[in-house]
Amino acid sequence: MIDLDFDKQGGLVPVVVQDAADGAVLMLAYMNREAFDKTVATGLATYWSRSRSKFWVKGESSGNVQRVRDISIDCDSDTVLLQVEQVGGAACHEGYRSCFFRKVAGDELQTVGERLFDPKDVYDK
Amino acid sequence: MIDLDFDKQGGLVPVVVQDAADGAVLMLAYMNREAFDKTVATGLATYWSRSRSKFWVKGESSGNVQRVRDISIDCDSDTVLLQVEQVGGAACHEGYRSCFFRKVAGDELQTVGERLFDPKDVYDK
Repeated sequence: MIDLDFDKQGGLVPVVVQDAADGAVLMLAYMNREAFDKTVATGLATYWSRSRSKFWVKGESSGNVQRVRDISIDCDSDTVLLQVEQVGGAACHEGYRSCFFRKVAGDELQTVGERLFDPKDVYDK
Repeated sequence: MIDLDFDKQGGLVPVVVQDAADGAVLMLAYMNREAFDKTVATGLATYWSRSRSKFWVKGESSGNVQRVRDISIDCDSDTVLLQVEQVGGAACHEGYRSCFFRKVAGDELQTVGERLFDPKDVYDK
């Protein structure tokens, strides 16, 4: 079993999610032990939703699943890096490719990403 | 002032650090409001060390500072992405380029990164 330090964040570890194709950072999510094991077993990124307090197979609503290509662990064993194939191209629930679609420009945030879908069309059906 | 949600993690936000040159994910660290403001003001990545409970200008011991090229904020405003120029080439205190130098291979971790320096030569002087 892969040794991970879940104690620093009450049973969770942060997970950096990167597009395996070009290295773009898509999102940050969280896993508990079981979500990590499910991810390894199924090859589909599975997180623990802090806001909904439940497992969350990424893409179960939108169809934009993440097929796991590689899993790395950091030096302190308290952070996971997933390299994924992002099906559908958009990881963010707001319809952007990456959740990091806003760049700091002075005192303001500038939207730099292109919206690939309208959330209303995906989640409010 | 850039609006960030520090409440979810007791005054801190996680910060994904990526090499601006080729997109490699180097490390995950944490900032409080003041560390974020110092980073913006100085252009040098400045974190809050959870283990030492103090500000930490990355590279102050090793010389491997991180010059900030871009700062992005995620959709929930609870995670920061820094794109940096990693001086010295190695971000990890264990001497590897990235803290994510171990890849999951079945039930084991396989070291995939190349060690660029020996920590004893840098920190134990």
